Amino acid sequence: MNIAVLGTGVVGQALAGKLSTLGHEVTVGTRDVETTLARTEPGVIGNPPFAVWRVDYPDVGLATAADAAGRAELIVNATNGEGSIPMLELAGEENLAGKVLIDVSNPLDFSQGRPPSLFVSNTDSLGEQIQRRFPDAKVVKALQTMNCDVMVDPSKVPGEHDVFLCGEDADAKRRVADLLESFGWPASRIRDLGGISSARGTEMYLALWLRLWGALGTGYFNIAVQAA
Amino acid sequence: MNIAVLGTGVVGQALAGKLSTLGHEVTVGTRDVETTLARTEPGVIGNPPFAVWRVDYPDVGLATAADAAGRAELIVNATNGEGSIPMLELAGEENLAGKVLIDVSNPLDFSQGRPPSLFVSNTDSLGEQIQRRFPDAKVVKALQTMNCDVMVDPSKVPGEHDVFLCGEDADAKRRVADLLESFGWPASRIRDLGGISSARGTEMYLALWLRLWGALGTGYFNIAVQAA
Repeated sequence: MNIAVLGTGVVGQALAGKLSTLGHEVTVGTRDVETTLARTEPGVIGNPPFAVWRVDYPDVGLATAADAAGRAELIVNATNGEGSIPMLELAGEENLAGKVLIDVSNPLDFSQGRPPSLFVSNTDSLGEQIQRRFPDAKVVKALQTMNCDVMVDPSKVPGEHDVFLCGEDADAKRRVADLLESFGWPASRIRDLGGISSARGTEMYLALWLRLWGALGTGYFNIAVQAA
Repeated sequence: MNIAVLGTGVVGQALAGKLSTLGHEVTVGTRDVETTLARTEPGVIGNPPFAVWRVDYPDVGLATAADAAGRAELIVNATNGEGSIPMLELAGEENLAGKVLIDVSNPLDFSQGRPPSLFVSNTDSLGEQIQRRFPDAKVVKALQTMNCDVMVDPSKVPGEHDVFLCGEDADAKRRVADLLESFGWPASRIRDLGGISSARGTEMYLALWLRLWGALGTGYFNIAVQAA
C-alpha cells in the first residue's frame, strides 16, 4: 500500500520504518524537505535527525506533506498535537478526502510544565477536531496510548495488551485493524471503542499514562483490559 | 479500626459492607439519618435502598456525617463527585483533621448527556480540590477507577489487575495499601502514582473507562499495567 506518514520526529520514524519494513511504499511528509534534511540535532528523546535515521531506511521517501498525501492511499498523522491541523492543512483537504487517516497525535500542552496537560479534552478531543476540519477524511484515532516503539512492536511489552480504535467509519477501522495485526497486535486486543468522540477517552488516558511513566521509570509499558 | 463511610449509595454500601465483614467498626455517614432510612426506591443501578441493604449488614452503623467522622480513625468518601465537598463539609473539617481520607469519588458531570464528562479535569482534579479544602486531612485518592464490586473483590475480574494510589502522605498511602491488601489486592498491583495531583490521571481515565464499559457491555473489568 502507498502510505504517507506526516511527521519526521520519533513517532513518524517508528511508524514509517515499520511500514517500510513490512513492504509498504512509504513517503514521509514534511513542511519543508530541505529543512528536514538539513537538521543535524537529535530529536526530543535523543532520536536521530531524519537524514541520519533514513540511512537505515533507504526505501522511505521524503516529500512535502501535499506530495506525500496526494499519492497515498492511507495517511498517518504522526505530528505533535499542536502541529497536527496545520500539517494536515498543508497536506491539503483534497489529498485527504475519501482516505483513511490514522491519527496518532496527542493534544499535549507543555506550557504549564510537566507532566503536560491537554489543550483539548473532556467535551472535545483532537481526533474530533481533525474529523470536523476534514469531514471527507476517514479519521481513525489509534496507537497514541503508548510509546512509539511499542506501537510498532507490541512484544516490547510482556504478555498481551491493548490498542484502541475510535472512528466513524467501520471499514476504515477494519483496515487499520489489519495494519495493526501486521504489526503484531492480536486481533482480540484491538478494541473498537466506537465513534470518533471516543477519542476523548484515549486522549484523556494520557494523563494517567504520563503518571504511570513517571512511576514505572520506563516508557515500555501498556495496559491490558481484563474483563469477566 | 473505626471507619466512617460517607455516602449511602451503591459505592458506600459495597465499601461499608466489605469493611464490616473484615471486622472493622463501620458507621455510614449521611446528611439526614431519617431521610436515608425512609428511602424505599432502589439506587441508580438498581441497588437496594439503604434500609433494605442494611438488613444483611446489621453491624454497620448509620449516623450523621459529623457523628460518623468524629468517632472514626479513617474516613472514606464514597459520595458522588458533586456531593463530595458538601458532604465533607457536613462531616466537619475538625473531624477530618489528621485522619486518612480515602477519596473514591469521580467528578462526573451528567449535564451534557452520557457518557458523562468531568466537572473538573486536566489542570486540576476533585482529589486536589478536596485536599485544598481540607488541608489537615490526609487525602488518598484510590479505587475510583473501577466498578465498586471489583473495588472490594478484585477476583471479580480474572487475572491480576491494578489499583492506584495518589496522595501527599506516604504513611497514609501505606495504610490504604494495607486495607486494599485485606480486600484481596496483591501488593504488587497497588501502584503509588505520587502526589495528589496524580488524581488528574486516575480521574481522567474515567473517560476511557466509560467507553470501555460501553464496548465491553460489562462493568466487571479493569486494567492491568504491564511493563518491560
